[in-house]
Amino acid sequence: MQIAKVRGTVVSTHKDSSLKGVKFLLLQFLDEEGRLLPEYEVAADNVGAGVDEWVLVSRGSAARQVSGSEQRPLDAAVVAIIDTVSVGNRSLYSKKDEYR
Amino acid sequence: MQIAKVRGTVVSTHKDSSLKGVKFLLLQFLDEEGRLLPEYEVAADNVGAGVDEWVLVSRGSAARQVSGSEQRPLDAAVVAIIDTVSVGNRSLYSKKDEYR
Amino acid sequence: MQIAKVRGTVVSTHKDSSLKGVKFLLLQFLDEEGRLLPEYEVAADNVGAGVDEWVLVSRGSAARQVSGSEQRPLDAAVVAIIDTVSVGNRSLYSKKDEYR
Amino acid sequence: MQIAKVRGTVVSTHKDSSLKGVKFLLLQFLDEEGRLLPEYEVAADNVGAGVDEWVLVSRGSAARQVSGSEQRPLDAAVVAIIDTVSVGNRSLYSKKDEYR
Amino acid sequence: MQIAKVRGTVVSTHKDSSLKGVKFLLLQFLDEEGRLLPEYEVAADNVGAGVDEWVLVSRGSAARQVSGSEQRPLDAAVVAIIDTVSVGNRSLYSKKDEYR
Repeated sequence: MQIAKVRGTVVSTHKDSSLKGVKFLLLQFLDEEGRLLPEYEVAADNVGAGVDEWVLVSRGSAARQVSGSEQRPLDAAVVAIIDTVSVGNRSLYSKKDEYR
Repeated sequence: MQIAKVRGTVVSTHKDSSLKGVKFLLLQFLDEEGRLLPEYEVAADNVGAGVDEWVLVSRGSAARQVSGSEQRPLDAAVVAIIDTVSVGNRSLYSKKDEYR
Repeated sequence: MQIAKVRGTVVSTHKDSSLKGVKFLLLQFLDEEGRLLPEYEVAADNVGAGVDEWVLVSRGSAARQVSGSEQRPLDAAVVAIIDTVSVGNRSLYSKKDEYR
Repeated sequence: MQIAKVRGTVVSTHKDSSLKGVKFLLLQFLDEEGRLLPEYEVAADNVGAGVDEWVLVSRGSAARQVSGSEQRPLDAAVVAIIDTVSVGNRSLYSKKDEYR
Repeated sequence: MQIAKVRGTVVSTHKDSSLKGVKFLLLQFLDEEGRLLPEYEVAADNVGAGVDEWVLVSRGSAARQVSGSEQRPLDAAVVAIIDTVSVGNRSLYSKKDEYR
């Protein structure tokens, strides 16, 4: 999985019929120091993530291992909202600190 | 999924027999600011997208999660025509504005 | 799918037994202007493509969606010989013009 | 598979319900000389790997070929802790030497 | 598939139990002129390849289309030892010449 930050949303009314009701988030990837990279992914949201939250995104066939999405033409999904990222003993990110 | 712009078409008469009737679009990827990237993909069109429209493209096995394409040797498909892309409170793209 | 040009062949006698009789083509990818890129792929040929022809190559599990290859350890296959590539109203490539 | 070094952990309480109990490791990839690359992956740990160990990471659908993970939305998993890496007759890495 | 050169081996005793008995080769990719690239892959060996041989490596789910590996968490496998690579009428590589 990759670590990404929720930046926004993508809306489409004219789409594959199986995608009705799927919420598309615009994610921007973060590097190993938590800096924004010039790479993004549009992913189905399975966990109710909000703008600026750090999330884990699964790509490829993993995106369809989510209840209800087995037969949707999805190649990326948000599968977790991140609480903390630690490198060795050092805290790289803590959601609690960001939002208090 | 990635955001791409429809640029043109690819036509082939001599192809795997399962691909008869599939329309191939030439897509060019866009970066997170909506600028054209020097990367493209040829994707099966499932939604009737036209030149210059912004679309969502799914790659890998997701491209075969479309009714009728389950057993076609496809690794990319247009799965949605984009109405709007928003980053935070800012609108990055609105189809309505482009086409009025 | 990506657009590639057939450059040559790869021959192997000592290989996974399921690959007997598979013809391997050496493909070089083309950019969105039709120029050769420094990237190649060795792909199973399903359509009888010849040197210098432009083809569509599918990668990943798509390469096994071809009759007879369902259980071969292939991750790339030539699935179509390209007749024309058009960008907007402009013709980028026409096989007829190349070969007359 | 790629060779990576375990750098830390990622913790999430709000996630796809199938991911309960999965331990997420933050891995950093190594190049062919064993130097850290600026690329990472968050992977499910199947083997009890610890910080600084060298591991093999499998990506894509391979990550779900682990007992119990068949239907989890995972696209990366640690599948082995590396003892030795040899290039020709030269030893590039030996866990025994690192930890004595 | 990609063309790679066998450079060495990776040994692991502590690994997913399904991987017992699998031999892991360290492969380094070659460019379209046969030069070593700074990219490698650790792949399961299915064909008994030796150091310095040129091989075809399949990645992704293709690596599990080998008898006995269907349920192993592998994302790369050596599927063929290369005899010759030809570009047009030119020979880029011939195993016979290398080893006589």
